[in-house]
Amino acid sequence: MSDNSTILISAQQMHERFESILLDLNFTKERANACAEIFTANSVDGIYTHGVNRFPVFVQYVKAGHVRPNAIPSLHHKFGGMEQWDGNQGPGPLNAVHATESTMQLARQYGIGCVALANTNHWIRGGTYGWLAAKAGFVFIGITNTIGVMPAWGAIDSRLGNNPFVMALPYQDEAIVLDMAMSQYSFGAMELAVLKKEKLTVPGGFNNVGGLTNDPAEILASRRALPIGYWKGAGMSLLLDILAAILSGGLAGHEITKSAIETNISQLFIAIDISKLSNHSLITKTVEAIIEDYHKSVTTDASKKITYPGERVLKNRKNNLANGIPVLKNVWDKIMGI
Amino acid sequence: MSDNSTILISAQQMHERFESILLDLNFTKERANACAEIFTANSVDGIYTHGVNRFPVFVQYVKAGHVRPNAIPSLHHKFGGMEQWDGNQGPGPLNAVHATESTMQLARQYGIGCVALANTNHWIRGGTYGWLAAKAGFVFIGITNTIGVMPAWGAIDSRLGNNPFVMALPYQDEAIVLDMAMSQYSFGAMELAVLKKEKLTVPGGFNNVGGLTNDPAEILASRRALPIGYWKGAGMSLLLDILAAILSGGLAGHEITKSAIETNISQLFIAIDISKLSNHSLITKTVEAIIEDYHKSVTTDASKKITYPGERVLKNRKNNLANGIPVLKNVWDKIMGI
Repeated sequence: MSDNSTILISAQQMHERFESILLDLNFTKERANACAEIFTANSVDGIYTHGVNRFPVFVQYVKAGHVRPNAIPSLHHKFGGMEQWDGNQGPGPLNAVHATESTMQLARQYGIGCVALANTNHWIRGGTYGWLAAKAGFVFIGITNTIGVMPAWGAIDSRLGNNPFVMALPYQDEAIVLDMAMSQYSFGAMELAVLKKEKLTVPGGFNNVGGLTNDPAEILASRRALPIGYWKGAGMSLLLDILAAILSGGLAGHEITKSAIETNISQLFIAIDISKLSNHSLITKTVEAIIEDYHKSVTTDASKKITYPGERVLKNRKNNLANGIPVLKNVWDKIMGI
Repeated sequence: MSDNSTILISAQQMHERFESILLDLNFTKERANACAEIFTANSVDGIYTHGVNRFPVFVQYVKAGHVRPNAIPSLHHKFGGMEQWDGNQGPGPLNAVHATESTMQLARQYGIGCVALANTNHWIRGGTYGWLAAKAGFVFIGITNTIGVMPAWGAIDSRLGNNPFVMALPYQDEAIVLDMAMSQYSFGAMELAVLKKEKLTVPGGFNNVGGLTNDPAEILASRRALPIGYWKGAGMSLLLDILAAILSGGLAGHEITKSAIETNISQLFIAIDISKLSNHSLITKTVEAIIEDYHKSVTTDASKKITYPGERVLKNRKNNLANGIPVLKNVWDKIMGI
């Protein structure tokens, strides 16, 4: 039914189109540029679901008034290395960059810093802030809550968010960045699998009679996504939500879910300045030795390589910058029609 | 083959036996008491694998010289809210309590504090430090690395630790404590299932031909435990190891694995003092509302209740303090024979 053909769009062309749309939505020049760059960079990195494919939804949120283009975060409380900010319903990516930079500033001063951010919007791709902080020399942990998409373990109704969790650190001139939601698959990934008539490689949720299934269509029908590690990911999702909500003073997942619109969410950013550690000059070698050992893993499929979180991003980045970003034609048509 | 009968041992009787053994191993009176109390409390909480069942292994490590009874951590670097300590191969639980207390002290001063601990030993049960910090009014995150027990995703050989991860926070007069290893099941749990002739409720690892299986005997034979969420838990395990190693300046998992003995491990402790937040007086209500919503989950089995991480511990604690701690007779015989 859908046209699955892809076209190649250069990063510059994509950035210009995004920026132009955001300017029309009354973003200031500087903010339109910054926001367009994040959506473009996510696409360059190969994270299309959180780049070009997501851009129309972001625009819809701006148009509906859930995202206020020029609202900036305001500091409402500070104690040592810990700050609480109000996101004032600004654009999620710009708020999250602001929070990441504030967290790094605290870490420069106190070794470790933490910013909790209330009333913000979807940060789109958590990895954005992991890469930002790691490339600046920081260990980074990021947490966001979301609208409910998964049941508690042993439950039917989806009261838990997939609450993405990010950990990142510098590695050589780049970074190692883990960016993982608490659901085994995102609904976006499952929709794509249905479109491509593919099964999931591992069970991704429940069917309507409560059995585990790797048929994405069955999961889309039940709306019961599977937490990673069953009871473990469900528990971790609950804790991530609680931490984001209580430390920011913002909304918890159940309140976001009740509003039926994923806005006014809560986030947490932690950074550690590794230049302030006694062993800072040895850290690169330590990480290299860990990755070297990891890469020595014997693979089940000899044609495949074991990759660390973020490793494939580098390859995508190189390819997409050289050859253009592959974009679904119907997605690009939609963006050109905004 | 094994005698699976259980006997009831009072907490006092257990504590006294543990303390007496530790005194014989040249622990000072104060340290024998503190260490005995941790193993006893873990058993009272129903975490037998990390309490009474683990005690003989701990004794063996002390006897072999891997755990130095009266070694205490030494501070080797400090910058603001961040400290790096050397555990000096002291007993893991005592070192971890020391580190947790130092982290809380930093958090009192800076809002957020972090202690990284090198050259320590197995902390036994991560939840111990989560409960300790949470009951004192702190949000807590704890990370430890371990010896390799899981393959990377797509690999055969076990180069990743199960690297337990703890998140905790105060809840009413108690705490919510998530204490989860990155493997779906511990080898201890799988050995117990074999003993009880039970299958695992979800796949827990690979068989010798690389298929996922819920037969614990097959996984014990292959030694290939399954990471939670497949590639996600494998990635998280890698990042937890890297963070513990680089921030402490201690050994990484691959180095511990090479030594073949799980000692000189690396740990990380983060605490946030919630009394220093602007919304501190509202936090109890926020958490209560989250848990109230969570408990409203519709269960797949009407006879079962949805519990939050740590909830069942309270029930075990009450039962075991009132009625005695159920201990496998052969485990207690072993302890009486030390």
